[in-house]
Amino acid sequence: MVKSWANLGVDLHVEPTGTGVRRGLTDALRDAVRTGRLAPGTRLPSSRTLAADLGIARNTVADAYADLVAEGWLTARQGSGTRVAERAVVPPADTTPPRRLHGRPTYDLVPGTPDLAAFPRTEWLKAARRAFTAAPYQALGYGDPRGRVELRTALAAYLSRVRGVRADPEHILISAGISSGLRLIGAVLRARGAQDIAVESYGLTAHWQILDEAGLRTRPLPFDELGTDPGRLTDESAVLLTPAHQFPMGLPLRHDRRSAVVDWARRTGGLVLEDDYDGEFRYDRQPIGALQGLDPDQVVYLGTASKSLAPGLRLAWMVLPPPLVEEVAKAKGGIDTCGVLDQLTLAEFITSGAYDRHVRSARLRYRRRRDTLVDALAQHAPDVHVTGIAAGFHAVLSLPPGTEQSVVQAAAWQGLALHTLSFYRHEHALADPLDALVVGYGTPPDHAWTGAVEALCRVLP
Amino acid sequence: MVKSWANLGVDLHVEPTGTGVRRGLTDALRDAVRTGRLAPGTRLPSSRTLAADLGIARNTVADAYADLVAEGWLTARQGSGTRVAERAVVPPADTTPPRRLHGRPTYDLVPGTPDLAAFPRTEWLKAARRAFTAAPYQALGYGDPRGRVELRTALAAYLSRVRGVRADPEHILISAGISSGLRLIGAVLRARGAQDIAVESYGLTAHWQILDEAGLRTRPLPFDELGTDPGRLTDESAVLLTPAHQFPMGLPLRHDRRSAVVDWARRTGGLVLEDDYDGEFRYDRQPIGALQGLDPDQVVYLGTASKSLAPGLRLAWMVLPPPLVEEVAKAKGGIDTCGVLDQLTLAEFITSGAYDRHVRSARLRYRRRRDTLVDALAQHAPDVHVTGIAAGFHAVLSLPPGTEQSVVQAAAWQGLALHTLSFYRHEHALADPLDALVVGYGTPPDHAWTGAVEALCRVLP
Repeated sequence: MVKSWANLGVDLHVEPTGTGVRRGLTDALRDAVRTGRLAPGTRLPSSRTLAADLGIARNTVADAYADLVAEGWLTARQGSGTRVAERAVVPPADTTPPRRLHGRPTYDLVPGTPDLAAFPRTEWLKAARRAFTAAPYQALGYGDPRGRVELRTALAAYLSRVRGVRADPEHILISAGISSGLRLIGAVLRARGAQDIAVESYGLTAHWQILDEAGLRTRPLPFDELGTDPGRLTDESAVLLTPAHQFPMGLPLRHDRRSAVVDWARRTGGLVLEDDYDGEFRYDRQPIGALQGLDPDQVVYLGTASKSLAPGLRLAWMVLPPPLVEEVAKAKGGIDTCGVLDQLTLAEFITSGAYDRHVRSARLRYRRRRDTLVDALAQHAPDVHVTGIAAGFHAVLSLPPGTEQSVVQAAAWQGLALHTLSFYRHEHALADPLDALVVGYGTPPDHAWTGAVEALCRVLP
Repeated sequence: MVKSWANLGVDLHVEPTGTGVRRGLTDALRDAVRTGRLAPGTRLPSSRTLAADLGIARNTVADAYADLVAEGWLTARQGSGTRVAERAVVPPADTTPPRRLHGRPTYDLVPGTPDLAAFPRTEWLKAARRAFTAAPYQALGYGDPRGRVELRTALAAYLSRVRGVRADPEHILISAGISSGLRLIGAVLRARGAQDIAVESYGLTAHWQILDEAGLRTRPLPFDELGTDPGRLTDESAVLLTPAHQFPMGLPLRHDRRSAVVDWARRTGGLVLEDDYDGEFRYDRQPIGALQGLDPDQVVYLGTASKSLAPGLRLAWMVLPPPLVEEVAKAKGGIDTCGVLDQLTLAEFITSGAYDRHVRSARLRYRRRRDTLVDALAQHAPDVHVTGIAAGFHAVLSLPPGTEQSVVQAAAWQGLALHTLSFYRHEHALADPLDALVVGYGTPPDHAWTGAVEALCRVLP
């Protein structure tokens, strides 16, 4: 029979086996130590406390402890009580081997992650304290599937001001990253009977996979020297685009093509999914406003804190056409699935102006890095052509034809993590293949940046 | 053509229309104010700053501002700059009416939410600061789909010590609530070809719905005076149970039935889903250890911070049989979807002992409430029979036959939110119907507790 008890200090769970209280307790404790359930060094409750909890005589517990000390499972010392002996515990037989750990590369130039060392920890903690102190206790309960109203309100004002998004807090939905948002939209589209979705010839495999798992076939649009060409859009249910800054190629969607996309959506009732992953980061040119502003009834705007702050926050947002809100909230399971505290903190972070300050300082840092990257390449790798540098924090380095594989191998030897352009190419891409690298300059912390650029120049032809 | 600019202080996005720079800027700003994109009271950048950003003459901006002040869209005052006028903004035509807000009841006795007013805010913020200061910056990146290793490690030790769970951090997976966990398990079972899952005759409709949406038919087990009877388990793929504290009936699963469940699982290869939602809260009797300890290869243990701390954290955990880990991680999308900061904080909260302290103090508080509830009922509602009071923070109040509906109506009049037992009854339940209420005594804050009990007694027969 399974029994368990608690002492008043630290809880302890034992299963007495066999007959006799002392024997049962001894066996159960021995088993707990042997299997590692009670870790070496763990302090056991006093015999008095445990006896009271179990409703048995104190001597019985003291005897059981003494037996196990004698057997070497426990140690007892005057003043420090009874503890589990510091001995090697036999690992349980069913333990699978730990996951293979990839060696961390010396320099990480894979695009997609901002400089995490520059995360504004102090400011964030201050905002957390303010937000958490101000929040009503009811905010800690089960919440609106759209997310906390404080964050949706802060985002509506911010996105309208900075990205030209026409946003109402009622139509914003918080998700755990843009991928989670795409998963929800994919489910809604599928439930509406959609079968196909147009995507760009270059993009994130992870996103295509999410749509695929939702039951939607991804059909790439042609990509030419002007960028993605939406001219071939026909009866697809939706199109996923990165209009402000094509990922990974780095161009904005051209003016006439922006109009063409919206016209297609209006004509067919199709939905435009606008992935505005790094809309805040632009340097030389004037920023491209969100496509959503052109027609909020046809465009789902997707933004994220993963590039502006950190992916670990798992906070992204969608601005939805009003008729979609209920369906997407239902697909989310009808309850909020994002932590309330980070939502409240981000709301406070935006409202207090700390977000604007952080984005501006990050923008300066990334621009400086981009400039040193471009300078170094001009000097050390004149055959490499750099594009996509007006915005974001990655660049495309076109290589002399036929050199891609040797560069990748040299990079591996240099401990340099990077991706080729083909990594981001759809299997049915409508675009001429190109030997190129996609180099993220956001990820390395400041102190590693010079070394990373030097290592990169060494592996380039 | 869409253009947008940023000044160095606050970003601003405008779309000039028509010809002429001044006219274009004026129109764009007017439009932004008219549609509410620039909210009343918003301070505009100085004409000098905006002119520099736009690369146009300062006078042009000053003139545009002056036009709009003249038209009443903006206000200008010496010393406080130019601001958007405080006027009623015409709401956009496509705004759907706001969601209907349910009036908040005076007293909330719906079970499932702990006392949120007692959330240990100060301790939590301290733990957040310590955890966040200690974390490597890489922790803020895209993470292991199982969740942060710090939290999995802390949980493995805690669950082993307190709930008798055999847990290895490698086999733990963090999810946004037990519902999210069930969604993942449901997807994995379905992908393996499962069609049916056994559930209890009483439970959470939301859980059954999640399994249903995953494509699994829920088949209730009989419920008799001894609780859930697993004797009829046959070829179901899995069974979802609340063994430590049947929800909502409040009994533990009987010893022989515990063994029967595990025997069934071993014999058929079925999976036991152990929902241990409030395993920490027990009062008079010795706690029932987790079923998982009997056979970690057949049982998925599901625990949560929603009852012990707050649902708003959206943090729950599964201890998985080793062969399931990869599949469930894949179902989660291959990346972590829970915020890192709360995971790190909870890990620190557990490791530092603050979690144990909080649970003990909550246990005392709930026990006191339970005692006042039982006393008040004995005095004021002698015909009502209370059960399920040995653990958790809800009780079942059996009513005289035929009185349930009149009690519910009287409760509504008293501003008392509560659920009947039938709310938790499966549509194909194998159990005799019972007139009863399920009363949660966790939710009201301390100051409202006496009033809540009095209101309850007034509506009981």
